[in-house]
Amino acid sequence: MSDLLWQKPGVAVDAQIQAFLAGDDVVLDREFFLHDIAASRAHAQGLRRIGILSEDELGAMERELSALAGEFSAGRFVLDARYEDGHSAIEAWLVEKLGNAGKKIHTGRSRNDQVLVATRMWLKEKLGRTAALAREIATIALDRARAEAELPLPGYTHLQRAVVSSAGLWWAGWAEAFIDDARRALDTRALLDANPLGTAAGYGVNLPLDRAHTTAALGFARQQVNPVYAQLSRGKFELAALEALGSATLDLRRLAWDVSLFTSAEFGFVDLPAQYTTGSSIMPNKRNPDVIELMRATHASVAAARTEIEQLLSLPSGYHRDLQASKGAIFHGFGRGLAALELLPALLANLEWRPRRMREAIDAGMYATDVAVEQSAAGVPFRDAYRAAAEAVAQAGEGRTPEGSLQARVSPGACADLGLEELRERLAALPV
Amino acid sequence: MSDLLWQKPGVAVDAQIQAFLAGDDVVLDREFFLHDIAASRAHAQGLRRIGILSEDELGAMERELSALAGEFSAGRFVLDARYEDGHSAIEAWLVEKLGNAGKKIHTGRSRNDQVLVATRMWLKEKLGRTAALAREIATIALDRARAEAELPLPGYTHLQRAVVSSAGLWWAGWAEAFIDDARRALDTRALLDANPLGTAAGYGVNLPLDRAHTTAALGFARQQVNPVYAQLSRGKFELAALEALGSATLDLRRLAWDVSLFTSAEFGFVDLPAQYTTGSSIMPNKRNPDVIELMRATHASVAAARTEIEQLLSLPSGYHRDLQASKGAIFHGFGRGLAALELLPALLANLEWRPRRMREAIDAGMYATDVAVEQSAAGVPFRDAYRAAAEAVAQAGEGRTPEGSLQARVSPGACADLGLEELRERLAALPV
Amino acid sequence: MSDLLWQKPGVAVDAQIQAFLAGDDVVLDREFFLHDIAASRAHAQGLRRIGILSEDELGAMERELSALAGEFSAGRFVLDARYEDGHSAIEAWLVEKLGNAGKKIHTGRSRNDQVLVATRMWLKEKLGRTAALAREIATIALDRARAEAELPLPGYTHLQRAVVSSAGLWWAGWAEAFIDDARRALDTRALLDANPLGTAAGYGVNLPLDRAHTTAALGFARQQVNPVYAQLSRGKFELAALEALGSATLDLRRLAWDVSLFTSAEFGFVDLPAQYTTGSSIMPNKRNPDVIELMRATHASVAAARTEIEQLLSLPSGYHRDLQASKGAIFHGFGRGLAALELLPALLANLEWRPRRMREAIDAGMYATDVAVEQSAAGVPFRDAYRAAAEAVAQAGEGRTPEGSLQARVSPGACADLGLEELRERLAALPV
Amino acid sequence: MSDLLWQKPGVAVDAQIQAFLAGDDVVLDREFFLHDIAASRAHAQGLRRIGILSEDELGAMERELSALAGEFSAGRFVLDARYEDGHSAIEAWLVEKLGNAGKKIHTGRSRNDQVLVATRMWLKEKLGRTAALAREIATIALDRARAEAELPLPGYTHLQRAVVSSAGLWWAGWAEAFIDDARRALDTRALLDANPLGTAAGYGVNLPLDRAHTTAALGFARQQVNPVYAQLSRGKFELAALEALGSATLDLRRLAWDVSLFTSAEFGFVDLPAQYTTGSSIMPNKRNPDVIELMRATHASVAAARTEIEQLLSLPSGYHRDLQASKGAIFHGFGRGLAALELLPALLANLEWRPRRMREAIDAGMYATDVAVEQSAAGVPFRDAYRAAAEAVAQAGEGRTPEGSLQARVSPGACADLGLEELRERLAALPV
Repeated sequence: MSDLLWQKPGVAVDAQIQAFLAGDDVVLDREFFLHDIAASRAHAQGLRRIGILSEDELGAMERELSALAGEFSAGRFVLDARYEDGHSAIEAWLVEKLGNAGKKIHTGRSRNDQVLVATRMWLKEKLGRTAALAREIATIALDRARAEAELPLPGYTHLQRAVVSSAGLWWAGWAEAFIDDARRALDTRALLDANPLGTAAGYGVNLPLDRAHTTAALGFARQQVNPVYAQLSRGKFELAALEALGSATLDLRRLAWDVSLFTSAEFGFVDLPAQYTTGSSIMPNKRNPDVIELMRATHASVAAARTEIEQLLSLPSGYHRDLQASKGAIFHGFGRGLAALELLPALLANLEWRPRRMREAIDAGMYATDVAVEQSAAGVPFRDAYRAAAEAVAQAGEGRTPEGSLQARVSPGACADLGLEELRERLAALPV
Repeated sequence: MSDLLWQKPGVAVDAQIQAFLAGDDVVLDREFFLHDIAASRAHAQGLRRIGILSEDELGAMERELSALAGEFSAGRFVLDARYEDGHSAIEAWLVEKLGNAGKKIHTGRSRNDQVLVATRMWLKEKLGRTAALAREIATIALDRARAEAELPLPGYTHLQRAVVSSAGLWWAGWAEAFIDDARRALDTRALLDANPLGTAAGYGVNLPLDRAHTTAALGFARQQVNPVYAQLSRGKFELAALEALGSATLDLRRLAWDVSLFTSAEFGFVDLPAQYTTGSSIMPNKRNPDVIELMRATHASVAAARTEIEQLLSLPSGYHRDLQASKGAIFHGFGRGLAALELLPALLANLEWRPRRMREAIDAGMYATDVAVEQSAAGVPFRDAYRAAAEAVAQAGEGRTPEGSLQARVSPGACADLGLEELRERLAALPV
Repeated sequence: MSDLLWQKPGVAVDAQIQAFLAGDDVVLDREFFLHDIAASRAHAQGLRRIGILSEDELGAMERELSALAGEFSAGRFVLDARYEDGHSAIEAWLVEKLGNAGKKIHTGRSRNDQVLVATRMWLKEKLGRTAALAREIATIALDRARAEAELPLPGYTHLQRAVVSSAGLWWAGWAEAFIDDARRALDTRALLDANPLGTAAGYGVNLPLDRAHTTAALGFARQQVNPVYAQLSRGKFELAALEALGSATLDLRRLAWDVSLFTSAEFGFVDLPAQYTTGSSIMPNKRNPDVIELMRATHASVAAARTEIEQLLSLPSGYHRDLQASKGAIFHGFGRGLAALELLPALLANLEWRPRRMREAIDAGMYATDVAVEQSAAGVPFRDAYRAAAEAVAQAGEGRTPEGSLQARVSPGACADLGLEELRERLAALPV
Repeated sequence: MSDLLWQKPGVAVDAQIQAFLAGDDVVLDREFFLHDIAASRAHAQGLRRIGILSEDELGAMERELSALAGEFSAGRFVLDARYEDGHSAIEAWLVEKLGNAGKKIHTGRSRNDQVLVATRMWLKEKLGRTAALAREIATIALDRARAEAELPLPGYTHLQRAVVSSAGLWWAGWAEAFIDDARRALDTRALLDANPLGTAAGYGVNLPLDRAHTTAALGFARQQVNPVYAQLSRGKFELAALEALGSATLDLRRLAWDVSLFTSAEFGFVDLPAQYTTGSSIMPNKRNPDVIELMRATHASVAAARTEIEQLLSLPSGYHRDLQASKGAIFHGFGRGLAALELLPALLANLEWRPRRMREAIDAGMYATDVAVEQSAAGVPFRDAYRAAAEAVAQAGEGRTPEGSLQARVSPGACADLGLEELRERLAALPV
């Protein structure tokens, strides 16, 4: 444990308590250490603009911050238990290298706004990545939807055979799902694109900090104006980000369910490339779709991260140490969530259908809805047509083929009219 | 239990099972019965446009749907266990009134897209109300921030006295919080402003349904194109809506915490109007802030609704009856959430400060940060100034007043520069 | 809204606020109104024993409480918005019927301990019912395990075919699961079998209440000694009860998953009696296992109830109105949970296997583990035997039958040695 | 990544996929590696008893397992990414050291029952520790309750001053709370004290494994009989354990809330030893109760772990890779939970009251309930006495003292009759 920069003299330190306080904070801070350094640089520039630092001091500080970033990236500077946290490490580095100039870096700021700004920068980056992956997934799904628009696939409701469907319809469904997920990630990124740096410990300071400069320098769209709200939003924006990620991982959970079923021997609609499967330690015959199952499990980690933060947020306004626990939660949630989404594009591109098995699973009853609707188009009231079809389910398939059923499915968005252009336009219209 | 419209003949019915299946579905369906009727009207118009209904049939159907809406609103038509659900009740009404024409209403649709479209309409309305309330709350908070910008209030971190703050800073914090909440509710409303009607049971139908018409007639911004996705989005959009609501109820939870503390005898910063308090059945001396505590409890119900839906969504694609349970969840979450938010504007407008108590709670040490920052502005490295101030905490207040501290707090957004104009502009810039 | 018994004079009442305060409290209180009456009777007896009530007053009070219980059960006394809650209704009834004697019922108690004792009584009853159902389910499963010990069923891991298994092994698995669930429900019932009546508002009273009497009269195993803890345990014991219920509904969720898969056309291992299925409003061919799916969905409601209570419990000690929200949560969770469990015994008893389909789904590779283990018994190191078997998976079935595989599966608990006696003994050993 | 023991030849390996599959499994496995080794020893003994291993082979195996445990404990054997998981590492070690004999260790077992048995052993240990800590906390609380039975402390409901209470009553409340928590941890330990080793991959094996031996050797109270249930209980027992822990951490959350409030300047009832506080990086005057706040935050991590597991458990029977994610969750939940509970005994022992501040916070109205109850004891109907007292709240304190109020509070469990003996007996009666 480091000699704390703001340690009160004469306070006995208890090792077990110190370990509890430290937790894995300093290790977690590695995740956004570079963001913290970048924000420190912007803060130093702001201090120069209001005369707290001289031009020389700023220059030295920028140089040393660059050096620290370089050492850290190269693995030569290790953020570990010598420091209370990443914030103290930066100040300690500057004090060690620059003496009095280094002691000025914390002028007008608090670790509270330091962690807030680094968190926002990190979340913006991760939401951008979420959106990019969702886009990539949607693009692949749209391509396969076009290519496989006429490939029959049984359509299920309640896991029971329902009507004839197509691989194209299935792909286009996932495309639209991930377009919405990309949109939501971008909406959320915009929502939290506000700079909290300069709000100090939640009450501002008696210095005319140049917050407009740090906002621009760090690429934020706007200031988070109010210092009390800066503290109140701790956890709130982390939740918003996890919820946006969760929208995608929930879709992934359902997609993984489809693939899990489709790769069972009983369904047998999909062949999974061997690299997505593993063996068993005891059963020589097994090839298990572990990757798919871990993808399905991913949302649980995102949900857990949400829980961990939401449960903290029953507090009065002002900073409380409880909120520190939100850090590990977002790293866990985004760590797991993005790792799974990163694998999805290649998986979708490589997934192979087994058309014969898909066709075999289409039975006569699956044409009964077509029959009833045809009758209704011919003037029979639908409810009567339905009843008639229900009494002749076994005959519903006479003279019908999967292809014929697909071609007749002309309602907008359905198998004969997938609306891929509209989806492609929506995808293209998303901001970058 | 009604004679089901699509009951298979010869199937014995078990009363306990039927009761389990029905649950409180039909009662819940009262919540969006008018939306279901409106969507039925649009669907009927669409059927006319593709020749399924004659002009006369459409006219009769529109008349009877209006009549049903009227009877329902007047309390003369009661949606109860005579019907399986609200959807069946509408068809049963039309069949009873119109015979064969009534039997045509379900042509090309399923209860699956019926419930989806009614849910979307209902959620759009509720998110609009959430945003309107958040705006109203923000407006009151901004007004009070301006009026009370100079009223000293102790600022806390860790529930410990930290620095001098102001009522104005506190109000402006809540204003910015609810501006973000309004924005999020509106973003979410836009995200789910997509029409699923016309996707039937998740695979479309063999009829050229006029989905563009129903989309326009029901005021949706766009179509939900893909039928598979229409089903996949069941639960997903309910979650998004609850999460947006939860953003506001989490802020409410923290606001209620502040008020709860501030109305304790020990803090004593706030007087609560008598109508917000209740008595005790045993203790004659009590006046308890029950309203505040129920507001604080509200988020738990929103969180519960989220849980109830999220836990359902581990399913393959296609409709599953599990998803039905999402209905009660959104009614519970929005019911509780909006009821609490509805009371907040008046509460905030009526809350009375106790300036003497607030001032008494400002102690000398709370100026120590001002002292250290002043020294740093005078050229002393901040870390040295901090240490010097730490050794003279008891003297920090010499020659200082709360008002002086507030006037010197000039960092943008802080007590001397609340940034209310910027917040007002953001509020005004939100879409309606 | 009733004229409140402890309304402060001169306080203006706001209808919207009153409605918010009332919520659906009085309606919810119907659930344990009879318990509240029973506890009131015990409390009155206790008051007699310390001289607060005369013998006549007690007699009159007992008579009127019986009358109230009778009227309520017969539906002639309706607990509705005329009363603030069920507790006030009881006092109001006694005051109306008995005048001064009625005004004595609340001596030495608070609504706080009233709701606590009624909740405990209600939860004990519901946990008893949970245990009884779990026992019944286990009994059926044990019976079917014995009867179907030799019926081959494919065994899966990762939804991939793994080894030969049997219906008997599957049934015995559910039996052991529900034996554990019964045990847990009974453990939990014992944990919360402590009487909080007599702790008043959390600090006791200046009267020598006869708590030993009420504890015995209400059938509690012990007193909840400490009044502060009585309040602290609000929510805590509700959570424990929901968690015990959740253990059973989680097992139900997984059981329903099995049945859902097994009734799909692709697996086809199970025929579901028609009364467990429903039709579709649009697809004439469908018979959907809605009951199974609603069973699977049930745990979500139990989990939601947990969330609703857990989120409340971030409070200092002492009663807070927030805790009121726990009432609806337990009614919702146990209402849904028990409704689903009530249907399970008959469902399990009626479930029909399709032996031919089960046998068809056993492929040659499923004997490969048997082969490797046999080799290892013959002296080949298992890892080598495994590799050899892996290279000859297609030949693994030569000369083998499902029955042979089952008969050789002699590890304790496995197909040839199900251990049903041990399970039966455990079931019998559970307390009633 | 190691050369996998059961790698299928010819399968191309994708590094990104392998990394995703591995996750942090092997690192997590360090937590129960010693348990895994102990279970491997018992399994080997069992294999000897059925003739799979010779006496020499067993001897060699036991020796090498001891050596591995020793190397691991000494930090010379590092479980890292060279191995797929801890299970494979053990087999690899034995194969390397013993050749053919080593290849026999996995005879009749699967990694599935290996992880199950290690998890159970680990959870039993952690639940034992939870119970021991709860006992220790209760013991301290009982001691302080006796010592401080007459120290007045204001009693609150709704955070409003209610009646006179005592430090003794407060301490005894926490004592009873943690006695219940200890009981629950022990109940839960007993519930999961069942040996799954010998159930292989969920279907047993064709060998007469000596499960009675392993059960006794590993100190389990009973066998988990059924192999299907062994798999079904994955996650279920982890949840039960986390819920038992959560009972204690929820109590901790509320206790930390009390201390947090009591150490605020406004309440000022408690002095926290300096080692439990930390400074601020910007505010020289601060001494913040961070330890208390992190204790309050702890339950969020336990709740998150519950969520992470519960969300996984929507699966058919049989092992699925999803369940692997439960491992990190229990380590996180118990890691955080126990770390916080470990600090609590010393904190409670060291907490110092500030009697003057406590007495000052007792106002006249807090005697009003005493007055009303006294009147009711004198024959005035309570409701009338209540009303009279309500009209004279300001005079309620006349001639009264905190001590007098405490001495009169004679209801069993209350301030004058804390029932400490009964609590002490309950504590003593808990199994070890």
